[in-house]
This record gives sequence, C-alpha cells and structure tokens, in this order.
Amino acid sequence: MKVAVLGFGTVGRGVYEMLQSCRTLNCDCVLERPGVFNEPFIVNDINTILNDKSIEAVAECIGGTTIAHDFAVKCLSAGKHFVTSNKALISAYGLELRDLAAKNGVSLLFSAACGGTMPVLHNMALARRSDTLFRSGGILNGTCNFMLTKMQDEDSSFDDALDQARKLGYAEADPSADLSGLDTLRKVILLSAVGFDAFPEGDLLCEGIESTDADAIKELKKRNLVLRLIGSCGRNEDGSLYAFVQPVAFSSSAAEANVKMNTNMAFWEGENCGRVTISGQGAGRYPTAANVLRDLTELPECRKSMLSAACAAESVKNDGCSFRYLVIENGAVSITEKVSVNAMFAEAAQKRKEGAKFFFAAMEE
Amino acid sequence: MKVAVLGFGTVGRGVYEMLQSCRTLNCDCVLERPGVFNEPFIVNDINTILNDKSIEAVAECIGGTTIAHDFAVKCLSAGKHFVTSNKALISAYGLELRDLAAKNGVSLLFSAACGGTMPVLHNMALARRSDTLFRSGGILNGTCNFMLTKMQDEDSSFDDALDQARKLGYAEADPSADLSGLDTLRKVILLSAVGFDAFPEGDLLCEGIESTDADAIKELKKRNLVLRLIGSCGRNEDGSLYAFVQPVAFSSSAAEANVKMNTNMAFWEGENCGRVTISGQGAGRYPTAANVLRDLTELPECRKSMLSAACAAESVKNDGCSFRYLVIENGAVSITEKVSVNAMFAEAAQKRKEGAKFFFAAMEE
Repeated sequence: MKVAVLGFGTVGRGVYEMLQSCRTLNCDCVLERPGVFNEPFIVNDINTILNDKSIEAVAECIGGTTIAHDFAVKCLSAGKHFVTSNKALISAYGLELRDLAAKNGVSLLFSAACGGTMPVLHNMALARRSDTLFRSGGILNGTCNFMLTKMQDEDSSFDDALDQARKLGYAEADPSADLSGLDTLRKVILLSAVGFDAFPEGDLLCEGIESTDADAIKELKKRNLVLRLIGSCGRNEDGSLYAFVQPVAFSSSAAEANVKMNTNMAFWEGENCGRVTISGQGAGRYPTAANVLRDLTELPECRKSMLSAACAAESVKNDGCSFRYLVIENGAVSITEKVSVNAMFAEAAQKRKEGAKFFFAAMEE
Repeated sequence: MKVAVLGFGTVGRGVYEMLQSCRTLNCDCVLERPGVFNEPFIVNDINTILNDKSIEAVAECIGGTTIAHDFAVKCLSAGKHFVTSNKALISAYGLELRDLAAKNGVSLLFSAACGGTMPVLHNMALARRSDTLFRSGGILNGTCNFMLTKMQDEDSSFDDALDQARKLGYAEADPSADLSGLDTLRKVILLSAVGFDAFPEGDLLCEGIESTDADAIKELKKRNLVLRLIGSCGRNEDGSLYAFVQPVAFSSSAAEANVKMNTNMAFWEGENCGRVTISGQGAGRYPTAANVLRDLTELPECRKSMLSAACAAESVKNDGCSFRYLVIENGAVSITEKVSVNAMFAEAAQKRKEGAKFFFAAMEE
C-alpha cells in the first residue's frame, strides 16, 4: 500500500524513515511547505497527493488544528485512510472526521495521539467490542512526569526541571499545553471517546503542574508522597461521565510513584478484562513514529475506525468524584475532608482570584 | 460472523456467554463430550461443526495437545478461522497450524495463550511488522506469582501457599506444569515465535519454584530481595536466540517486586518502541475469555496470522546470558560470580543428582 506523509518534522521524518524498511507499505511522497526541503520525495501541494489514486493512505504529522484539519477533511473526502498522532485535531474534530471516514469507507486511526509508544487507544478500541470498559486514565504527559521526577528525586526547582526537559527535547519551545494539563486533557478526551463512546464536553476540569514548586514537593516528600499529573475518565455509578486532570499524591510504594522521567503509564478497566496497565516511552520521534506505523500496517488487512458509530458528545458530571486533598495556601499546609473535584477546583479558582498562592493535590487512597 | 466453541469448561463457558452479547459475532453451537451437558446448543460431534458452512470461526477451549490438535487440523483444513487460548497446543504445533491456516486462507490467533487478559502477543505481532523486537519476557504464571507473594508477604509455607492457590482456583488439580516452570516456558516460546519469528528449540532451560521454600524466601528477605519466576527470551549480540525460565531476585523497589498475587507482567523491547510493559490479571474465566473474544472480534475485518510466514524453529544459545546467582546448598547461602545460565543450571542438576538440597535465583542488576 502506498502512503503519503504530511509534514517532515520530528515525527514525520521518523515515519518516512520507518516506511522505507516496511515490507507491506511504501512511501515516496512527503508534503512540506515550499522552500524548506529539496529532497526529491518532497511535494508542496496537497492536491498532488489528493489526485494521486495510487496513494491509499495518509499519515498526518503536521500538528495543530487548522491546516491539519483542512488536510484531514480533504484526504478523507478523497477516500484515503487517515492516520495521525495529532491529539489536538482528534479531540477537537474527532466526530466530524469519524463521519467523513465512514462516509468514504476508509479508516481513521490515531494510536500515536495518546501515550507515545503505548498502544493504549488501539487496545481499548479492540477491548470495548467484547467488554464493557468503565474507567481509564494515567500518567499521560512525559514532559510533566520528567519535571516532577527531577523535582522529587533531585530537588530541582521548577525552572531547572523545565530547562532540562527543554535540553533533552521533551518540552516544546512553548510548553504551556504540557504544563497547564491541556495536553493530558486532550488525551483523556481520546481515552473516553475510544473506551466509552463518549466525547467529554462541558466543564472539563484541568489543573496542571504550574502551581507545583519546590516547596510543595518538599511538603509531599515529608509525608512520603510522590506527585504525579493524572488524567482520569470513566463512568459514575449513575452512568454519567467524568473526565478531569489533576495532580495526585501517591504513596512512594504505588506503581505510579515508580513511573519516572518521560515514561507514561495508562490503564483501562473493564467488566471482563479487569484492570490492564501499560507503560512505555511517552514521546520522542521513533516511539511516536512506531505507533503511527503500527496503525498504517493495519490498513492493508483491516477496515477500522477507532471511534465507533455510537460515539457521541456527552456532558461530564465531575461532582460524583471526591478526594481528600493536600492544600498549600500561601505556605500553610492542610489536608481537606473528602470533597468533590468540582468543589476543590472552584475553591482554587476563587482563592487564586483573591491573589492567594494556591497548590492542591488529590490524595490517592 | 458465526462462531463455534470447542469445550464448555471454565474458559469455553466464558467465551460462549460473552458471545451472546457480542454485536458482530454470534454462537449457538458448543462442542462437548456426550452426556455432560444437555443444553440445546451443545453438540457432541466435531463433524457437525466442520460440515456447517455457516460457521466461519472456531474458538478452541478444550486444552491439551491430543484432541485439541486433531480438531485444530480438521477446523483449519475445513477453512475455519481458529482462535485458541491453548499454549501447549501452539507451543507444540504452532508452525504446522500456521501453514495449515495460510494454505486455507484463514486466521490462526492465540492472544489468550499468554498472559491471561494482557494483549501481549497481539501487540507484539503488530509491533514486529514496523519495528525490530529483540527482547521479551516477564512474570507469566499467576499461580507461581500468587504463591511467591504469599510466601514473601505473609510468610506462608510452600504447601500453605499452594493450598490457598487451589482454594482460589488459581492452581489446577495437578499444578506441576505451573510449579515446574513448564507453563511459563510455553509462554516464552510463544513470545519468541511472535516477536522474533523464532520457535525456540533445543536446550530450553527451565527452573520453576519447586525448590523455593520458606527458608529460601527468608534468606532473600534478609537481603531486601523479592523472588519472582521470570520467563526470558531474546536475541544475543551475535543474533542467536536465548530462551529460559528461572527464579529471579529483585530489589524490593523494582517494578517486578510490586507485581503481586495472580497479576502477570510482560514486556517487549524494540529498536523503535523502546521498552513497553503491560500488566493485568494472569488467569481466570473472564480475563481469558475476554482475550479470546478480542481475537474473534478481529476476524470479520482482518485476515491475520500471529505467526509470520518467516517464523521457523531455531536452536537456543543460552550460554551468552550470565548472572550473579544467590545459591542455597543444604542451607549454606552463597552469591556466585557472574556465570552463564547454562553453567548454573548444569551445576544445579549435578548437585541435585548427588542428593543436595539446592536452590538458586538470578540476581537482577
């Protein structure tokens, strides 16, 4: 099967390289902006790909939601399978692209959009067809986990940890989507869409690690606790959906506490399969490209959509989930009673509006 | 797609039940010996299934290598997809059945034959097509891990731990295949066949937990070490294959040490994907049945064989792997220098021949 790659950046180059040694797929066409690369396989016009009937599949490695969305619509409408690692694109336009793929009888796959090298979405998409999944989540952002590990194990400051993440290529030039938890939230949306047929919408609570400083880590270490940024989604007892991102304090013997540096860990729980946990490198050219390739190599023998026909938007109801929280307000540490995620986020917003320096982390029990 | 189930035991009944609520598959035919069950969907003659053109796939849940092998040959020859959780069958006859499946244009899938609910074989089969895998293994037997956890964490004796495993249904009436490591070895053979296109043959070294008693565990605990039964396979630096099963002593902070009770953990390592680790319930009706169902639900949309056309028998060369070992000979504890797996197993065999009470465990570094 002939594949075209959109974008020749970190992931795109990795995908192109790996396609050269793939037995069942070949690629001699990569789309890039004019004037950036001169390689003979580079084309600058999407129509070159759209009009080439021999190209059956496209791997989108551009990123963002503007050009990538335009090209996704054009490629799917032209009857080409669409594989992407673009979590922003799928979390924003997943249902539209699902319908376009179905209408044109092609596959929409995005394994690499969540968890780097971990095939978590692929496996949840398989598992949900013969099982009822009701909970998922985990450590989904390698940049934050790297920084938290540095701060926890080496007493780095937030800024030093971020600098090191940048030096090692884990953090983007603009890391705000990582630090704010937005990147993790987008992955949570994908876990929910694939695992529970529900695209979370409405009040998606998202607290990142921007309020986590060396003092907060010190207070946690005093209590033998290890901080991780956790994305969570699932079904409440009444069947409603929850989805949120928050820092969670784990005992040092917990599995999450031992997921270090840029490693990710995701889990899913189902009636029949119980709890399945998977961990692997969260990012990087080849781990991500390997996940894109895994989707591509399925195309010659499968017709799949990771988003089922039943998948629909669904409002979240996060007040069903409650935790005890460790709170640090202007240096004063306290542990709350069990309060709902909604209540905790609302209080943090209020206190910060009043100018307080406010940190909170759920206590895992 | 219409599926027939062979065998109405623990797993077979789970598969039949789950098929009743499956959207893409249906089943109204289960094969069992005469006189055991009277349900209307029970048939007693394999020919009823072989001759029913509407039955496109068979799920074998009989176990063993005699009847199961006969039925596998007959079903594949009759052009029916064959899905099984039978590790003994595939580790013994995998290549023959792979060829039969290819000849008849049907799929041979056995996800549930390794790791209970963990889709490790499924994912390695996918990963190897776009990556070069070179190492795999893990904690692959829930019975042994349950017993070792009881002995380590609750100071149970070997016999008490085995009794509890029996009471909870983790151990078979005859647990010898679990305790001797043979069950783990069969799973290692499958990991190697799927991951490296190599069916290990020749001197497959296999030490189980039969020599692990409360005294040995006490000596390990003194050193803050936790014992696990580990299956290992991979490529030596010279490209040759290694495959063996042995007890391994891990520091209490190692991930393996925190895999408890009947949980399994498997990993694979590849050039592009790095190290991916997966853990889940190692056994049980629904976890195993869920894995069988996952294979079955792929059949309507995929034509797959977990064993590639390139997969062939290959002699193992275990003298390339060496460890420091903790040895207890007639109560005397010692730590060896780095010695090859071959040398350690040879010494254990010799000492036991001479009547010594001999325990050994590789020290993970």
